[in-house]
Amino acid sequence: MAGGQIGIGVIGLGTVGGGVVELLREKAGELSAAVGAELRIVRAADLEPARATELGLGDEVFTTEAWSVVHDREVDIVVELIGGLSPARELVVGAIEAGKQVVTANKALLASHGAEIFALARERGVGIGYEASVGGGIPLIRALREGLIANRITRALGILNGTCNYILTEMTARGADFADVLAEAQRKGYAEADPSFDVEGTDTAHKLAIVAALASGAHPRLEDIYVEGITALSPVDIHYAQEFGFCVKLLAIFSQDESQIHARVHPALVPQDHPLAAVQGPFNALFLEGDWVGPVLLYGQGAGRRPTASAVVGDIVELAREVATGCTGRLPPLGTASPSRTPLVLAPMEEVLCQYYFRFMAADRPGVLAAISRVLGAHRISIKAVIQKGRRSQGPVPIVMLTHEAPEAAVRKALREIDALEVIAAPTVMLRVVS
Amino acid sequence: MAGGQIGIGVIGLGTVGGGVVELLREKAGELSAAVGAELRIVRAADLEPARATELGLGDEVFTTEAWSVVHDREVDIVVELIGGLSPARELVVGAIEAGKQVVTANKALLASHGAEIFALARERGVGIGYEASVGGGIPLIRALREGLIANRITRALGILNGTCNYILTEMTARGADFADVLAEAQRKGYAEADPSFDVEGTDTAHKLAIVAALASGAHPRLEDIYVEGITALSPVDIHYAQEFGFCVKLLAIFSQDESQIHARVHPALVPQDHPLAAVQGPFNALFLEGDWVGPVLLYGQGAGRRPTASAVVGDIVELAREVATGCTGRLPPLGTASPSRTPLVLAPMEEVLCQYYFRFMAADRPGVLAAISRVLGAHRISIKAVIQKGRRSQGPVPIVMLTHEAPEAAVRKALREIDALEVIAAPTVMLRVVS
Repeated sequence: MAGGQIGIGVIGLGTVGGGVVELLREKAGELSAAVGAELRIVRAADLEPARATELGLGDEVFTTEAWSVVHDREVDIVVELIGGLSPARELVVGAIEAGKQVVTANKALLASHGAEIFALARERGVGIGYEASVGGGIPLIRALREGLIANRITRALGILNGTCNYILTEMTARGADFADVLAEAQRKGYAEADPSFDVEGTDTAHKLAIVAALASGAHPRLEDIYVEGITALSPVDIHYAQEFGFCVKLLAIFSQDESQIHARVHPALVPQDHPLAAVQGPFNALFLEGDWVGPVLLYGQGAGRRPTASAVVGDIVELAREVATGCTGRLPPLGTASPSRTPLVLAPMEEVLCQYYFRFMAADRPGVLAAISRVLGAHRISIKAVIQKGRRSQGPVPIVMLTHEAPEAAVRKALREIDALEVIAAPTVMLRVVS
Repeated sequence: MAGGQIGIGVIGLGTVGGGVVELLREKAGELSAAVGAELRIVRAADLEPARATELGLGDEVFTTEAWSVVHDREVDIVVELIGGLSPARELVVGAIEAGKQVVTANKALLASHGAEIFALARERGVGIGYEASVGGGIPLIRALREGLIANRITRALGILNGTCNYILTEMTARGADFADVLAEAQRKGYAEADPSFDVEGTDTAHKLAIVAALASGAHPRLEDIYVEGITALSPVDIHYAQEFGFCVKLLAIFSQDESQIHARVHPALVPQDHPLAAVQGPFNALFLEGDWVGPVLLYGQGAGRRPTASAVVGDIVELAREVATGCTGRLPPLGTASPSRTPLVLAPMEEVLCQYYFRFMAADRPGVLAAISRVLGAHRISIKAVIQKGRRSQGPVPIVMLTHEAPEAAVRKALREIDALEVIAAPTVMLRVVS
């Protein structure tokens, strides 16, 4: 900070970076008033000079050398918006080591290296803002890190990928196949040309890792988080779920008890009267349960240039205020000053306890339901509801079932045995239910 | 702050105050870890010593003199939880003048004297936390004051009174009368013995005044805010609203343009697919529209001992952290360091422009709809939809109507003329619609 001016250095001038530059310019007066000092972009880096030209950033500001942003003495706050692990990791670490405040929207980076980066920021006494890394413009990091700090978060359920929620919403509304809706989403720009990162649940898992760290202090390893995407979902199961009173959402699921945490990503049946059931199209939401506050839902646009820029600039303002008032490092990365809690262990998926939805494809013969029930009973899985669909003239018929709570391990074993039965015509569809 | 200890002084040990004392005790370890210093209740005042005994507060802490909390040199943060205007106002002002950080849940105080109190806090460089004053445990003040600071909030719609939303939810679910549901709510403890403060909309108006101040920088005078409660609502209108695809909610409505703000409280028809329509029972929610972030919904428990204590302690932690790191006054009361914006004028209710719902009770005669339409047309109010209910053997029949957007002044004039028509048997019911 020099002469009532806070120096901002932006690395990455793509969709979000460009939005941040525009927003800082459009609201220059209001934001300076909020901080009590001028916010000024003193350095901005991108590999493509054309982007700088488009944004009207001159040669005195623009550079193709990201490191020159980190090393610029006039830069108080480094804003990392290039995404990916490298060189983002080195740049963020370098910025912290240089004593700069850091803002990042990089969920992959924090999911993989959050423990290291947060520890370093704490050690160096610098602030790090990452509101934009989960839920786009929704101020959910701030809620977990500050507003709900008095709570133990017992459970968090998130719809954290807009592409998946858009696809599921359309599949539900029109009974359409995954592949058809995906192709349409790609045409409309709601899905990437290579959608695997979204539809296979990886993006959601990255965001879950960050939510889990905020809620528990533990940093689960990404490779230990169970992840199942939506590519195998069939509209017929969404339809049957509705008959049982549920909708199907791709959820990030976190919970914790005294000794362990659960963190998993998979499609789930959500009761139609649950607040998450109302989250339609590309919207995101995080549903939290705190031991004092009870249930809280935070909802909004989880992606896009303008909502994400809103979150990034909210972080810039907060850190700029700390620079201006001389109290950088005031807020620890996870909201707790000391990582004192005993590190919690991530429970293996086999230990998950929940209700299940099954669709068996069985020969249309007497005694089939009895055979299935016998196997489930042997594994102590009890049946809550069954819909046996009308007979067909030929071919297998669906038997749709909801269970009471059962352990995942027992369910897997039971399904292996059931699928080996001679009367079963196709692998059984299994979906998990949240209550 | 003395020796790594932050002194807390609590004024008021009622429902919320008792919860705050319990929460600070239950989470002493975690909260001290979060702040990096011990949080200690050094003084607590109430007029009833029995409350202190119940909470296990000894004579070295408890006092019946509220001012001795404000004047205690060991108190860093004064937590005002007595509610009402006096002596709360004098105590809060006194605490700020003594250089103490202040936390308050007092919506009536901030709605009436927010401008004065916030200006004083800014002048003295002390922090003031008031998360619990609106929306109980929902971290919505924090969202407006910090997370969404880069946005111009163009509109805010709030369900901010749990008693009203509970009553409306029950009226909707069961087609029950207001008086019957109110009586039941009182038996269950969801409504006060004297419910007028809630059901007449006053409580919602207090909260709206605070939201309006955060969103616009202007402090509308309470007496200028149009307030209409739910006492006159009839289940038949809720039923007809549903036929049109709406539910009925008591809303706090804020909007602003370049020159003026709108702030009003009244029952409103909300589209059934709007996120606020899913807010059931005693829950609260705030729906915001920001120019960059787009729509955001924040949902949770708007009242009650535990959720409100969660919000109060969240504020205590934030201010304690500022005391501990020596940066008190870092965050201005409204999030903007200087109240630089031109004060916006509150638009009169007559200038409101919205769609309307009417229920006319008319003689069952030919030409009635023509007569009504003629008057509406003369006032340039155009009809969007009409349901004319089945004829009865005798007595007046309802004609239910939705209009396109029209100014409130024209609607009032038209209804006066219509109600004077000889064919109209009872005063017309008018409700406003939000889109």
